[in-house]
Amino acid sequence: MKVNAYAAPAAGEPLAPTTIERRAVGPNDVLIEIEFAGICHSDIHTVNGDWGPQPFPVVPGHEIVGRVTEVGADVSRHSVGDRVGVGCMVNSCGECTNCRNGDEQYCAQGMVGTYAATDRDGTTTQGGYSTHVVVDADYVLTVPDGIDPAAAAPLLCAGITTYAPLRKWEAGPGKKVAVVGLGGLGHMAVKIAHALGAEVTVLSQSLKKQEDGLRLGADHYFATSDPGAFETLAGRFDLIVNTVSAKIDLDAYLGLLAVDGTLVNVGAPAEPLDVNVFSLIGGRRSFAGSMIGGIALTQEMLDFCAEHHIGAEVEVIPAEKVNEAYERVLASDVRYRFVIDASTLS
Amino acid sequence: MKVNAYAAPAAGEPLAPTTIERRAVGPNDVLIEIEFAGICHSDIHTVNGDWGPQPFPVVPGHEIVGRVTEVGADVSRHSVGDRVGVGCMVNSCGECTNCRNGDEQYCAQGMVGTYAATDRDGTTTQGGYSTHVVVDADYVLTVPDGIDPAAAAPLLCAGITTYAPLRKWEAGPGKKVAVVGLGGLGHMAVKIAHALGAEVTVLSQSLKKQEDGLRLGADHYFATSDPGAFETLAGRFDLIVNTVSAKIDLDAYLGLLAVDGTLVNVGAPAEPLDVNVFSLIGGRRSFAGSMIGGIALTQEMLDFCAEHHIGAEVEVIPAEKVNEAYERVLASDVRYRFVIDASTLS
Repeated sequence: MKVNAYAAPAAGEPLAPTTIERRAVGPNDVLIEIEFAGICHSDIHTVNGDWGPQPFPVVPGHEIVGRVTEVGADVSRHSVGDRVGVGCMVNSCGECTNCRNGDEQYCAQGMVGTYAATDRDGTTTQGGYSTHVVVDADYVLTVPDGIDPAAAAPLLCAGITTYAPLRKWEAGPGKKVAVVGLGGLGHMAVKIAHALGAEVTVLSQSLKKQEDGLRLGADHYFATSDPGAFETLAGRFDLIVNTVSAKIDLDAYLGLLAVDGTLVNVGAPAEPLDVNVFSLIGGRRSFAGSMIGGIALTQEMLDFCAEHHIGAEVEVIPAEKVNEAYERVLASDVRYRFVIDASTLS
Repeated sequence: MKVNAYAAPAAGEPLAPTTIERRAVGPNDVLIEIEFAGICHSDIHTVNGDWGPQPFPVVPGHEIVGRVTEVGADVSRHSVGDRVGVGCMVNSCGECTNCRNGDEQYCAQGMVGTYAATDRDGTTTQGGYSTHVVVDADYVLTVPDGIDPAAAAPLLCAGITTYAPLRKWEAGPGKKVAVVGLGGLGHMAVKIAHALGAEVTVLSQSLKKQEDGLRLGADHYFATSDPGAFETLAGRFDLIVNTVSAKIDLDAYLGLLAVDGTLVNVGAPAEPLDVNVFSLIGGRRSFAGSMIGGIALTQEMLDFCAEHHIGAEVEVIPAEKVNEAYERVLASDVRYRFVIDASTLS
């Protein structure tokens, strides 16, 4: 089946309308009519070639929400008409220890990314900037009623990316959590950490977004451009979620952790970071990393967000504005996530 | 009271016999006649001035075992004749959150080190290369019967330094633990991890100490000079305890961790280490640090070691051989800890 899409024809070139082929619905497949697709910073990295050569043309998009319009003969968990979501992966081996533990994102064979990846049948995956997608039912999430579908789309990447470490490192009542950076990931981290019951502090370069941060659920807001903040906050946090993908002065941030505290990176800067081991030893601290989350945890996150009325803050755009949106993302000029209205692709 | 000791008169100078003053036994103090004092690599760093200026003359030694010969009026936990131990700290504020949590080593005011530190009364502490020491009873450990006292001395630093992370990160049955480096710390880590029920692998530069490693309790032994080891062991370990204080290729070692695995440094290299954040994110891994352990945990460790008949492997020397022993430590020519027989100081 041929469907409309927006694709990057080559590295660094603007995205343009095109048509792509979607596979026939297999016995365990779900055909989804896409309603919304979020724009993630990784989409931009990928099509710019920042992360190496890609199988162009590439249709980005791994924050997908839509309606089921057809299911394969063996599919029982989704039905026609259901509102569903697809995140950063659409397949994995299903058999390794990590897959069996529900950590399909760490599949020993490599998870299959939602776009620009080689699927297990040898075809190249194409993402959500499109009208339809066919996905194995095991990688399709249920989007509960009660979340606006446009606001739900970014939960599939930004939501799970922040929910996973907040759960793993037990953000909750009595815990002090800092979120570094108030962008697409950071604003979700603030909302979720607040809903989990933690005391939330935003650490942002400036106080420009302070009002937003407090509205989204932060209890405190500090500008990291003020060295005094690092003195005031020394030893304070149980958990710091760092959403910034650039190089930071890690030792300065590690100094903000209490004994047994963890700083977890969800962004991956291209350059290595320097760690003074004394920063860790001096408080039995940890520097950790976390990448999206497994399918079961992603469903848990969606259910949690529905229960707590959490969605992303979004600016919905027609597909033709995607290149402009990319420029605005690179300029940090978005509060906080662009979402493509896929009906504009029809 | 004047007592005999061995002290470094200045940075980098050989240690020499001297006498030092010990304070009168206060109401909460214990006077200990020292039997054995272990030689820790930190003693050498300190007297060499590697860790900054020191209040010379410095009497090193924070792996102390001896007999109680006098107690203050308010002391109830120790009695004359008891075999006791003193580790890396002899005081702390006792009031901060960390002290109240039993993490006196992370005291917000700074723990008082057993030597070359300023005690809370303003005096400078002097360590265990001496015939006697007076220590606040709350920082004196009970050395249970059943551990040879010379072999017990290194437990007070090397033992707790490795026991603490093994317990914190839950080494035990079903867990795969690697120990990097088979020296003073490493050989204790192997013994304790084995006694805790973990499957233990030694990662050493060469296979030179393989026979020892297996005898001490390791199940497997690999030479890190063989790049093939890093392929064979990829993704294998739940916990890696790094006892090496030099710069290592951290990313290579992080690649040996399973999902959710932790690499914990107990050594603190002087230079910062580079971390490629992808090494952490790609398996929700952590890079952590740990420094000795609190008083209650140190007592737990001593009791555990007595129950499991664990002591350090020691070479007992007279005090006059301390400078020679330092040279041999620096040349890694000790299996696995020098212990000074303090009776040779009398």
